[in-house]
Amino acid sequence: MDAQPLYRRWADHYLRAIKAGSLSQGDRMPSVRGLMRLHGVSLSTAIQVCRQLESEGWLEARPRTGYFVRQPRRLPIAPVDEPNVSALPDPAQYVGIHARVSTFIAKGRQYPITTNLAAARGAPELYPEEKLKNAALRILRRDSRLLVRAPSHSGSTAFRTVLAMRAVSIGLAIGPEDVLVTHGATEALNLALRAVAQPGDTIAVESPTFYGLLQILESLSLRALEIPTSPQTGISIEALELAVQTYDNIKAVVVVPHLQNPLGSIMPDAHKMRLAQLCEERGIPLIEDDTYGDLAESKIPLTAIKAWDRSGNVIYCASLHKVLAPGMRLGWMTAGRLQARVEMLKFAQTRQNEEWSQITAAEFMGLSAYDRHLRRLRSLLRTQRERTAEAIATYFPPGVRLSRPEGGVTLWIELPNKLSSEKLFDAALQEGILIAPGSMFSNSNRFEHFCRINCGLPYSKDLDHALLRLGQTVAQCLRT
Amino acid sequence: MDAQPLYRRWADHYLRAIKAGSLSQGDRMPSVRGLMRLHGVSLSTAIQVCRQLESEGWLEARPRTGYFVRQPRRLPIAPVDEPNVSALPDPAQYVGIHARVSTFIAKGRQYPITTNLAAARGAPELYPEEKLKNAALRILRRDSRLLVRAPSHSGSTAFRTVLAMRAVSIGLAIGPEDVLVTHGATEALNLALRAVAQPGDTIAVESPTFYGLLQILESLSLRALEIPTSPQTGISIEALELAVQTYDNIKAVVVVPHLQNPLGSIMPDAHKMRLAQLCEERGIPLIEDDTYGDLAESKIPLTAIKAWDRSGNVIYCASLHKVLAPGMRLGWMTAGRLQARVEMLKFAQTRQNEEWSQITAAEFMGLSAYDRHLRRLRSLLRTQRERTAEAIATYFPPGVRLSRPEGGVTLWIELPNKLSSEKLFDAALQEGILIAPGSMFSNSNRFEHFCRINCGLPYSKDLDHALLRLGQTVAQCLRT
Repeated sequence: MDAQPLYRRWADHYLRAIKAGSLSQGDRMPSVRGLMRLHGVSLSTAIQVCRQLESEGWLEARPRTGYFVRQPRRLPIAPVDEPNVSALPDPAQYVGIHARVSTFIAKGRQYPITTNLAAARGAPELYPEEKLKNAALRILRRDSRLLVRAPSHSGSTAFRTVLAMRAVSIGLAIGPEDVLVTHGATEALNLALRAVAQPGDTIAVESPTFYGLLQILESLSLRALEIPTSPQTGISIEALELAVQTYDNIKAVVVVPHLQNPLGSIMPDAHKMRLAQLCEERGIPLIEDDTYGDLAESKIPLTAIKAWDRSGNVIYCASLHKVLAPGMRLGWMTAGRLQARVEMLKFAQTRQNEEWSQITAAEFMGLSAYDRHLRRLRSLLRTQRERTAEAIATYFPPGVRLSRPEGGVTLWIELPNKLSSEKLFDAALQEGILIAPGSMFSNSNRFEHFCRINCGLPYSKDLDHALLRLGQTVAQCLRT
Repeated sequence: MDAQPLYRRWADHYLRAIKAGSLSQGDRMPSVRGLMRLHGVSLSTAIQVCRQLESEGWLEARPRTGYFVRQPRRLPIAPVDEPNVSALPDPAQYVGIHARVSTFIAKGRQYPITTNLAAARGAPELYPEEKLKNAALRILRRDSRLLVRAPSHSGSTAFRTVLAMRAVSIGLAIGPEDVLVTHGATEALNLALRAVAQPGDTIAVESPTFYGLLQILESLSLRALEIPTSPQTGISIEALELAVQTYDNIKAVVVVPHLQNPLGSIMPDAHKMRLAQLCEERGIPLIEDDTYGDLAESKIPLTAIKAWDRSGNVIYCASLHKVLAPGMRLGWMTAGRLQARVEMLKFAQTRQNEEWSQITAAEFMGLSAYDRHLRRLRSLLRTQRERTAEAIATYFPPGVRLSRPEGGVTLWIELPNKLSSEKLFDAALQEGILIAPGSMFSNSNRFEHFCRINCGLPYSKDLDHALLRLGQTVAQCLRT
């Protein structure tokens, strides 16, 4: 702790006071001179303390008055619309999503990007850099053979044990032997889909859904049947029932129950139960992608759909990429009655994962520091989401609508007057700003006038200015 | 170096003398008393020096005479037969190789195994444990953000640069941007096959071939057309030409040109050139798996088939799993005209690899220590192969035949009197010995009376005794 700069120590002191409620929203922060007197620090340190907390979104400066604990404004901004769930979904489509995404990526590379809002990813400073590094150093020193010994089948026992133990809190009763470690949730989804479907088959997915899933389906020659999905409660069970009655070739349903990407919706438990039952009755495997669950602002952990699985019909997939460390590509799955099949496919696809990431993760996740990290991560992300939402309400032209997810790293924006997000994408590039246009999240053109904005970056003056310019660009696009 | 025990230092001293030729095969080692006098060491240290070198296969003890530098015996043992290349290959087959392999694995788990000869893998002590660990510690200390920052697309630039530079010596003119980093050669082969074939398609492979490839084909619903393959010169070009003329649905050819698994064959350059031409003329992509090339005992590096590729038709795949570190699952590929497609498939399958393994490997491979390691590895493997071959010649009943590969970690054994290797497998299990029966290496039953033996373990008294018991078990099986 002593290696920290002095201002950081006092900034943390006040941060703890804010989080503990000793300083409430709207309260005045001690003045710069007050801080100097109270803590015996220099003028520059006292100023740094306030500026640091301001840049992290905990304080706001009021001219000639001083710093105050921020009070999130009530936003005069409407939520994004609910979908029409009574219409029959379009037949499964296949439109070359990879080519579409590649075009956006290629365009992005032609411009000097100063603000990347297209990702769905926390900045490195949100993650426990030092603690993870120390865990990694420790395990390498402790076990010299780690790099020269072939890794264990299905994953490191220590890691699988930690995962199985933590899964109790989301309603899963599994042992280490039920856990298959994968390269991120991406590989888990690949294995789950390959276990249940053949090229040409149809897979029901949320609409909109994250483009990574559409790319996986395309790469496996599977077709996506897009089911209307609520920005509040997730996939529409009614619409899915209708689709299942209409199309008899649906081989799996893939859902992201918690903080769905891009909507941010969270399925109510009653929906989860009905979905598990529906899939079981119809004999359709349900693939649950719980990549974002740990980022939800819930007093208790959100229960997995698999908690309602009675027949091993749910394949549960998760990832530590967004919650523990973006530099470690660790995912895992537990596949019920398909466990042996996904294990075979994993072995044939990439063999077992290397052990050092797994053991490093196990070492850190076994500590109470991991839960502290998760609380800090959620708190930082909330501030970043709120500040981004405020900036959009302030800087964007009237008519803009916004999702208000209770957790996660992104916001889903509906542009005014059905403005094309591809037009906005092109115009924003000129400003050095990268956004994710809505057309990346569907094979249809239904989300052409939406875009997804990353909130994983610490809120800064530069970011605020970028959002101001993005709002001006929206206004400009509406005029031309 | 001072952390080493004293006996190890003097053992290394004599090892250098043997490798440098100052002590030749058949020369007498100084006596135990001589060593005590010469180096001022204790009796027990002097004895340990000799025993250590004996256990590593550098010395042999002659009763009442002393230790001598080992002279490999001329083996009175015939090489395995050449295949019949004029017969038309059987149509492509699909027999459930995974179920077959799983049965062997499940059986193996029911017995306490003391000697695992079924793998094709070097023991941990053959690899640069300390140097790799130090490289890993160094890069973690240098770059704190490594674990919390999302990894680069397609792989770390440092690693791809080292790979591209080293590829010059095997005839490839590629840059870092042509290298895609994968999870072992296994993932590279998956991506290559997925890039060129659809379920139901036929792939021409060597016969016998390693069961990992047959499992990959099976998991992708591809059919293997087995082409006769020489234990000396690899796949038969004549037989392949015949097959290509006969079957018009061959979508790719997969070959292991160097130290083919399980045969150990090395393709002559003239064959490589003809193969590259044949595939190009026929428009059939050629997938080259060069996992073992660096283990070949050749004065100059063996040239890749891709060196003769004029149209980007060859997909070159390689791995560091067997040559650098079994604990790091690093592979790579360069796919010619299919590069963009394999990159898309890799992104959709597992995203980019984590960076720390890559940077650790790059750090070590950039040093001359890496070439020293490769020379040491080849030399240790040679000793282990020779001692295993001698043991088989000595302990097995007459009629046994043996491949004599010029490198690598395995031997391919033809059992006398067409003895079933599955029968031997079952009987060897009772002795706590695991072997890889020939039926794992083909969808046909052509290799029922063969087995593959691992030579990756340091030769020891226990191993020698296990081979003695294995030979007795063969004799017993022949009698019953």
